[in-house]
Amino acid sequence: MDKIKLKLREFANQRNWNQFHNPKNLAMALGGEVGELLDIFQWLKDEESNLDGISDKNLKKTKEELADIFLYLIRIADELDIDLVEEANNKIEINSHKYPIESSKDNAIKYNRRDE
Amino acid sequence: MDKIKLKLREFANQRNWNQFHNPKNLAMALGGEVGELLDIFQWLKDEESNLDGISDKNLKKTKEELADIFLYLIRIADELDIDLVEEANNKIEINSHKYPIESSKDNAIKYNRRDE
Amino acid sequence: MDKIKLKLREFANQRNWNQFHNPKNLAMALGGEVGELLDIFQWLKDEESNLDGISDKNLKKTKEELADIFLYLIRIADELDIDLVEEANNKIEINSHKYPIESSKDNAIKYNRRDE
Amino acid sequence: MDKIKLKLREFANQRNWNQFHNPKNLAMALGGEVGELLDIFQWLKDEESNLDGISDKNLKKTKEELADIFLYLIRIADELDIDLVEEANNKIEINSHKYPIESSKDNAIKYNRRDE
Repeated sequence: MDKIKLKLREFANQRNWNQFHNPKNLAMALGGEVGELLDIFQWLKDEESNLDGISDKNLKKTKEELADIFLYLIRIADELDIDLVEEANNKIEINSHKYPIESSKDNAIKYNRRDE
Repeated sequence: MDKIKLKLREFANQRNWNQFHNPKNLAMALGGEVGELLDIFQWLKDEESNLDGISDKNLKKTKEELADIFLYLIRIADELDIDLVEEANNKIEINSHKYPIESSKDNAIKYNRRDE
Repeated sequence: MDKIKLKLREFANQRNWNQFHNPKNLAMALGGEVGELLDIFQWLKDEESNLDGISDKNLKKTKEELADIFLYLIRIADELDIDLVEEANNKIEINSHKYPIESSKDNAIKYNRRDE
Repeated sequence: MDKIKLKLREFANQRNWNQFHNPKNLAMALGGEVGELLDIFQWLKDEESNLDGISDKNLKKTKEELADIFLYLIRIADELDIDLVEEANNKIEINSHKYPIESSKDNAIKYNRRDE
């Protein structure tokens, strides 16, 4: 991930794209890519989105969209000097307290932003 | 990242959340988190979103939302057996051809899904 | 809808919110609200999202989010002097040519941005 | 709006698209369209998104995306028997209490989902 971060930084520098790449704009761009991801899955049945059921075409598109999302995520984190891996580990720790194993079993309802 | 992937897999397994975690649902959940990220930046001036100008409160919220997005991204990739780092490197390679340095300088317009 | 448009315009004027309400920021705010809508449905089975199956709590939340999305949609259209009803009718006309009844029957795949 | 609602209902019926048009899927489709809207504005300066500064090409794209969002919004509301105009008016009433004129003047920070 550090290598990708540096590659992306150089990529933007070479093209003078730093003028566009403030976190606000990058967040919008990330939103645009997530829209493309939603677009892939919107009419699919659940089982058509799984590894067993997904079409080659949709799997290929999903790979591309996940890559786009990942690249923008790394760019935003880089611009704000955020360590994604550290923050992800922190969040897992927080979630393990928020969703105790027993009370969260089979229970999607608690796994919800509104209750966080 | 591999460690995070395994932790998340175990986290979902322990709570029987695999019934909810198909790629379609996870893509929606990712969309929900990106909405929270947009929410942070929506009324900010560009310079209030930069590292120099962002408030402590907004930086803290951004860290949490980027972590949430990262976790769902890793979950979707895991469910579909996608190697995020490999796909990200592929995409950078593709982009370097799509946006040649000279013709892309100072040029945001080409950096646009519609023209891809 | 015209009355709502004027109410929202006055609402923003009274609070000097026009400084924030450019179409770019409003589009982000709309994105934030759509994230909240996705959040409601993300773990639900299809039949739990239908009128017959949706919980009172989720229906209430959906009403609020649809209202929020509608209000921002009207605000953006107002800022850019766009007639939503006219554009919607134009789009239906375009779609009726793009998706001829016979060839589009039972066919979600064509109903996809990428093929447009 | 009622005419549009009925046209869309007929459009879906004629193509047997009701099998795809549950509120969950429609919410994802709405999310996809909002992604396209974000995509238009992501690299623009604020003044390039305003009526005075927006390019003809971007204004045309914005009209189409707002139409798409509006159509899906009407479809979801129809599927859940929600009166958008009534809910919008309710929400304005709620917001007028939540954001009193004096204390909300020039103050975007309060105009934030997290504080709602």
